Amino acid sequence: MLDRSTIIGFILGVVLVVLAIVTQGSLLIFISFSSALIIGGGIISATMVNYSFEDIKTSFTAILSMMGAKEVDLRTDMELLSMFARRVRTDGILVLDSDIQHIEDQYLKTGLQLAVDGFKMESLDSILRDEIKSREREVDTSINVMYSMAESAPAFGMIGTVIGMILMLQNISDPEALGAGLSVALLTTLYGAIVANMVMGPLAGKLGYLSELDLNRKQMFRTGILSIVEGENPRIMEKKMLIHIDPKSRAEYIKYHEGARISKERDEKFYKLWIEQQNKEWDDLKAILEAG
Amino acid sequence: MLDRSTIIGFILGVVLVVLAIVTQGSLLIFISFSSALIIGGGIISATMVNYSFEDIKTSFTAILSMMGAKEVDLRTDMELLSMFARRVRTDGILVLDSDIQHIEDQYLKTGLQLAVDGFKMESLDSILRDEIKSREREVDTSINVMYSMAESAPAFGMIGTVIGMILMLQNISDPEALGAGLSVALLTTLYGAIVANMVMGPLAGKLGYLSELDLNRKQMFRTGILSIVEGENPRIMEKKMLIHIDPKSRAEYIKYHEGARISKERDEKFYKLWIEQQNKEWDDLKAILEAG
Amino acid sequence: MLDRSTIIGFILGVVLVVLAIVTQGSLLIFISFSSALIIGGGIISATMVNYSFEDIKTSFTAILSMMGAKEVDLRTDMELLSMFARRVRTDGILVLDSDIQHIEDQYLKTGLQLAVDGFKMESLDSILRDEIKSREREVDTSINVMYSMAESAPAFGMIGTVIGMILMLQNISDPEALGAGLSVALLTTLYGAIVANMVMGPLAGKLGYLSELDLNRKQMFRTGILSIVEGENPRIMEKKMLIHIDPKSRAEYIKYHEGARISKERDEKFYKLWIEQQNKEWDDLKAILEAG
Amino acid sequence: MLDRSTIIGFILGVVLVVLAIVTQGSLLIFISFSSALIIGGGIISATMVNYSFEDIKTSFTAILSMMGAKEVDLRTDMELLSMFARRVRTDGILVLDSDIQHIEDQYLKTGLQLAVDGFKMESLDSILRDEIKSREREVDTSINVMYSMAESAPAFGMIGTVIGMILMLQNISDPEALGAGLSVALLTTLYGAIVANMVMGPLAGKLGYLSELDLNRKQMFRTGILSIVEGENPRIMEKKMLIHIDPKSRAEYIKYHEGARISKERDEKFYKLWIEQQNKEWDDLKAILEAG
Amino acid sequence: MLDRSTIIGFILGVVLVVLAIVTQGSLLIFISFSSALIIGGGIISATMVNYSFEDIKTSFTAILSMMGAKEVDLRTDMELLSMFARRVRTDGILVLDSDIQHIEDQYLKTGLQLAVDGFKMESLDSILRDEIKSREREVDTSINVMYSMAESAPAFGMIGTVIGMILMLQNISDPEALGAGLSVALLTTLYGAIVANMVMGPLAGKLGYLSELDLNRKQMFRTGILSIVEGENPRIMEKKMLIHIDPKSRAEYIKYHEGARISKERDEKFYKLWIEQQNKEWDDLKAILEAG
Repeated sequence: MLDRSTIIGFILGVVLVVLAIVTQGSLLIFISFSSALIIGGGIISATMVNYSFEDIKTSFTAILSMMGAKEVDLRTDMELLSMFARRVRTDGILVLDSDIQHIEDQYLKTGLQLAVDGFKMESLDSILRDEIKSREREVDTSINVMYSMAESAPAFGMIGTVIGMILMLQNISDPEALGAGLSVALLTTLYGAIVANMVMGPLAGKLGYLSELDLNRKQMFRTGILSIVEGENPRIMEKKMLIHIDPKSRAEYIKYHEGARISKERDEKFYKLWIEQQNKEWDDLKAILEAG
Repeated sequence: MLDRSTIIGFILGVVLVVLAIVTQGSLLIFISFSSALIIGGGIISATMVNYSFEDIKTSFTAILSMMGAKEVDLRTDMELLSMFARRVRTDGILVLDSDIQHIEDQYLKTGLQLAVDGFKMESLDSILRDEIKSREREVDTSINVMYSMAESAPAFGMIGTVIGMILMLQNISDPEALGAGLSVALLTTLYGAIVANMVMGPLAGKLGYLSELDLNRKQMFRTGILSIVEGENPRIMEKKMLIHIDPKSRAEYIKYHEGARISKERDEKFYKLWIEQQNKEWDDLKAILEAG
Repeated sequence: MLDRSTIIGFILGVVLVVLAIVTQGSLLIFISFSSALIIGGGIISATMVNYSFEDIKTSFTAILSMMGAKEVDLRTDMELLSMFARRVRTDGILVLDSDIQHIEDQYLKTGLQLAVDGFKMESLDSILRDEIKSREREVDTSINVMYSMAESAPAFGMIGTVIGMILMLQNISDPEALGAGLSVALLTTLYGAIVANMVMGPLAGKLGYLSELDLNRKQMFRTGILSIVEGENPRIMEKKMLIHIDPKSRAEYIKYHEGARISKERDEKFYKLWIEQQNKEWDDLKAILEAG
Repeated sequence: MLDRSTIIGFILGVVLVVLAIVTQGSLLIFISFSSALIIGGGIISATMVNYSFEDIKTSFTAILSMMGAKEVDLRTDMELLSMFARRVRTDGILVLDSDIQHIEDQYLKTGLQLAVDGFKMESLDSILRDEIKSREREVDTSINVMYSMAESAPAFGMIGTVIGMILMLQNISDPEALGAGLSVALLTTLYGAIVANMVMGPLAGKLGYLSELDLNRKQMFRTGILSIVEGENPRIMEKKMLIHIDPKSRAEYIKYHEGARISKERDEKFYKLWIEQQNKEWDDLKAILEAG
Repeated sequence: MLDRSTIIGFILGVVLVVLAIVTQGSLLIFISFSSALIIGGGIISATMVNYSFEDIKTSFTAILSMMGAKEVDLRTDMELLSMFARRVRTDGILVLDSDIQHIEDQYLKTGLQLAVDGFKMESLDSILRDEIKSREREVDTSINVMYSMAESAPAFGMIGTVIGMILMLQNISDPEALGAGLSVALLTTLYGAIVANMVMGPLAGKLGYLSELDLNRKQMFRTGILSIVEGENPRIMEKKMLIHIDPKSRAEYIKYHEGARISKERDEKFYKLWIEQQNKEWDDLKAILEAG
C-alpha cells in the first residue's frame, strides 16, 4: 500500500483543480493532448540527456518502494534489539543465529549475520557505515532526477506557450481567434505549473523525506548492532538508540519502561509476538503484552 | 499569550491591505471563495504529498507553543544557576534534589535530575547534547514545512490565475467581461502573494528565530549544568554562560554584579523570590532584591 | 558623521531617478501616499512577524553607529600596539595600567585591562574570541533583518500593483481611465523596486561590509593583545598583525618602518601625539613624527 | 559511439518540438537565422569574456570524450584487480610488469606502473589522489562553462525579443504587422528557452554525471592499487572496492563469488579472456567463464 | 595588452547586437542617453551605498591589471625553480642572492628573498600562506563588487522601464504615441540586460577565473620555495609542483624531461635564456634549448 498522505494529497489536489475549473466553465477546454506531450516528453527528453533512462526508472522505483514500505515503528525495533542484547549478554552472540531468519529488514539482517559470523568491531562498523553511505548516494541521484524534472516542467510549459503564441500572432486579424489561441497556448503553462508544483516537486521532497526516515532507522540499527557486539549494558544501548526516535514516541517509550519490569518471561512473550506480527505498531504490542 | 510582535505585525498587515483597498474601491471585490480554495487547498495538498499531514500539524503546534511560551530572561536563569553552583560547592550535589521540582523548563529539570542521580560528566554531556540535537532536528522539519508552504503559495496563485485567464479568453467578444474576468483571475495571484509574503514566509522565519533563542537557552543550561557537576568556580561558570546573552543585557548583568555582594542571605532571598515568581524579568527581581 | 560613500551614493541615486522623471514628465505623478504605505507598512509588518520590532530597531541602530564611527586607520592602531609591546618588554605588563583610560575602542580597552589584571593566556584568548563571536552573531541578525526587508519590498510592490489592477479592471469601459489606473498601480512596483535595489539591499550589503572591517580590526587587536601578554618580540607581533591590513597600506607601512629607526624618543613622541589626536590618519601622524 | 541516452533524449526532444509545431502550423515560421545568431553568438561572446575560447573547446571535447567512452563494468575491473592481488601475494609486485601494457585506462596503468617501480605507499597515495583532484578541477571548469552557457541563453533570448519589440513598437499603426513583429520577436525567446532547457542545461548535467562515474571508478582503482601494494588480503580488498559499485551490481557480484571457487585455473582463463576482450560486460565474461 | 579572449568576446557581442538591430531597423532608435544614465548611475549609486567608491575603483583596476598581465607559462616557472633547486643543492641557499633581482613576479621574489635571509620553514610557510590568503580576500571583494553590479543592472533596467510606462500611460489617448513610449521605456530594460549579461556578469566571472589561475601559480611558487629551503630532491619538488599544471601541459612537460638530460650546461644555457626573455613560452624556450 502506498504512503497514505501522498495519495490523499494527490486526490485533494486533483479535486481542487477540477472544482476550480468546473465551477467556472467546462473541463473539456482544459484537456490538451499536445500540451501534455510537450510537458511529458520534454521532461523525459531533458532527463534522458542529463541522466539516463535507467535513472528515471530507478527514481520512480525508489519512490514507489519507499511509499509502499510497511509502516515501521522504531520503538518495536528498539524492543527487539534490547531483547537481543539481553540474550547475548547471558548466552553469547551465537544465540542470535536462529533468530536472524525471522528479520525482514535487509540491513539489520545482514548486520546481525556479520556479527554472528564473528566480524571484528572495526570492520563491522565500516561495513555498516559504507552500506548507509552507498544507499544515501543512490537515493540522492533519484532525488536529483525528480528535482530536475520539477525544475524543467515550467520551462517546457513556457516553451509550449511561446510556440502557441508565435503561431497565434501570425494571423492576428480575427480577435476572437486570438483569444482562443492564447487560451490554448496558456494550457501548456498550466500543465507545466501543475506538474512542477503538485506532482514532481512534492514527490521529490517526499522521496527525500522518506529516505531520511529510512537512513535514521538504519543508523539506529547500526548503533544497536555495534552495541550488542560490544556487549554493552542494554540500558546504555537503549539510551543511545533513543536519540533516533522522535520526542513524543521517546517520551512514551521511556515512561512505559520506567514502569515495566523486564523479565525473562516478558522477553519470551514479546519475541513470540514479534515473530508472528512483525512490524506491528508498538502500541498494539505493548497492549497485548500488558494484557498478559 | 502569543508572541506580541507577531500579533501586531499581522494586524498591521491586515489593516494596511484593507486600507489600500477601501481607499480605492470596495472590499467585496477582493473576496473570492474559489481563490482561497485553490491557494489553501493547493498548499495543503502539496505539503501532504511532500511531508505528511502530521508534519503540517506539528509545524503549527511548534509555532504556537513557541510563541505562547512565557517570555524568559536569561539573566534570571543565570542568577539561579550560579546560586545553585554556590550551594553545590558548599553542600554537595545532592542539595539540589528538593529544588528540581520547582523548575519549569523541562530541559534544565531533566539535566539537573541526571546530575543529582550521579551521572558521569561524559554521559551527562552526551545526553544533554543529543537532546539539543534531536530538538533541533524536529524544529527544522517544521521550519521546512512552513518554507515549502510559503514557496508554493505564489505558484498556486499563478495556477489559479492561468485557469481564470484560459476560461476568460474563451469568450473574448465582450471586452468588459474580459476585464472583469481578468480581475477575478488576478485575485488568486494576490492571495498567493499575500499568503507567501505576509503569512507563511514570515511565520517560517519566526519559527527559526524563536527556535534559535530556545536552543541558545538550552545551550546555556548545558554549560551551567556541566559546570555545576564539575564543581567549577561559580564566577568562571558565569563567564562561560555570559556569551549566550546579548551584549546589552550582558553589560547590565556584569555591571550590576560588580557592585553587588554575593552573600548567603542574598542567595536565600533570591531563591524565595524565584520560587514565587518564576520567569520574572531580571530587572524586577533585581529591584526587589535591592529594595531589600 | 555618516559613512561618506553611503551618503553620496544615496544622493546620486535620488538625483538620477528625479532627473529621469523630470526630463520626461511631472514629478507629481510619481508621488503616491498609498503606495508608500503598502511598501513601508508591508515591510515593517512582515519583519515584525518574522523577527521583532526590537530587531528592526537594532538593525538600523547598528548601521547608523557603524557608519557614524570615526574612520580608523589600522596602521595607527599597529603603531600604538607595537609601542605598547616595546614598553611591556622593558617594564612589565603593569606599565599599561595608566594608558588604558586613553583608549577609545571598547574591545581593545577591555582586552588590555584583562591583560593588566593578570588573566592567563587561555582564558584571555577565549574571552576575546567569544566577544568577537558574540558581536558577529548580533550583527548577523541585523544583516538578515535588512536582507529580508530588501527581499520583501518587490513582493509588496507586486501586491500593491495587483490590487490596483484588480480595481482598475472592474470598470474597463473607459480606456483612458484604464491607462491612468494602470499607471497608478505600477507606482507600487516602482517603489518596491527602488526600496529593494537602491535602499535596503545596498544598506544590508554595507552593514555586512562594515561589520567585516570591524571584525577584522577586533581580530588584529586580539592578535596584538595576546602577543603583548606572551611577551613576544614586537617585530613578530607586527608581522602577525600585518595580515589584517590591506596590501597597499601594508606595503607603505613596511617600507616606512624599514627606513625609520625605532627609538625611545620616537615612541614617546608618538604616544603624546596619539593621546592628543586619537584615530588620526596614519599618514598625518607619520608626517608630524618625521617633521620632528 | 556517443552515450545512448543522450542521443535518444535529443532526438526525442527535437521530434516533440517539431510535432508540437507542425500539428498547429508551418515549421517555416519558426526558422530565424537572426534569432539563432543572437542566441549562439551571444552565448559564445559571453563565455569568451568569462572564460576563454580554449575553455569552450575543452568543455565540448570533455563531453564528447566522456560520452564516447566505451561502457565500463566496474565488476570486470574488480575481477581483474583481485586477480592481480592474488598474483602479487604469491609472486611479488614485479609480476605485474608485463601485464601493465594490456591495460587501457591511463589512470590504472600509471598507478600500477608506479607500484611496480617501487614507489612507497605515501608518495603513491598522494600521487594517485592529486591525479584525481587535478582531473576533478579540470572537469569542473568544463561543467561551469556549460552551466554559464545554459544560464545566459534565456537572457539573450530576452535581449533579442526586447530588440524586436522596440523595433515593432516604432510603427504601431498596422495591427497585423504588429502581430507578425511580436511573433518574430518571440522566436528568440523560444530559441533561448530551448537551448537552455533542452541542450546546454542537460548537457552540463550529463557532464557532471559522467564525471562522477569516472571519478568513482578512479577512486576504486586507487583503493585497489594501494591494497595490492600493501599486500592486503584480496578478500578485504574486494570488500573495500565494493562500496564503489551500485547496490544491484554489488549484490550480483557477491552472490556469484559466494558460489564460485577462485582457483589458479580460473584466474588464468579470466586473464586470457580479459586481454582479448577488454572492457567487456562482466555478465558476458562470467558466462564464458562458467561455460568453461 | 589585455586578455585576448575578453577583447574578442566583447567585439563579437557588440557586432552581434548591432547586426541584429541594423538588419531590422535603425540603430539610432536604440541610443538613449537617459536610459544609459539610469543604468550606469543606478549601478554606481547602489555600489557606492553597498561598498565604497574606492572598491569600485579597485575592482576595475584588478581586472585591468590581471587581464593586462603578460601571459605566463607555468612550465617555464617550473624549469626555473627546479634549476634553482639544483643549484641550491650543490652551492647552498645563498647562491640565489644575485638571481632574485631578475625575477619579475613579486610573490616569488619576496619568497626567495626571505629564504635567502634565512627565515625558518615555519615562519616562511606562514608568511607565504598569509600573503596568498590576503590576496584572495582582496580579489574576492572586487569579484563581489562586480557581481553586485551585474545583479543590480536588470533591476535598474526595470525601474527605468516602469518609470517610462507610468509616464506613457498618463496620456493613453494616442495609440501611436503609446507604442513609441513603450518602445523607449523598453530601452532601459535592454540596456540593463546587456550590461548584466554581456559586460558585468562575464567580467566578474573572468576576474574570478584569472584570480584562480593567479592563486594557483602563487601556490606552485610556495610549494617550490619551501621545497628549495628544505633541500628536497628536485625531482620530488617537480612532482609536487606538477599538480598545479593542467593535464595537457603536464603530460608534455613530463614527456620532454624523460628524454632530456639535465646537465650543468643545459641549466646555464636555460638561465641565460630566461634572464633575456622572461616569461617566454615554454615551447619556445625548449625549442631554443634543443636547437642548442
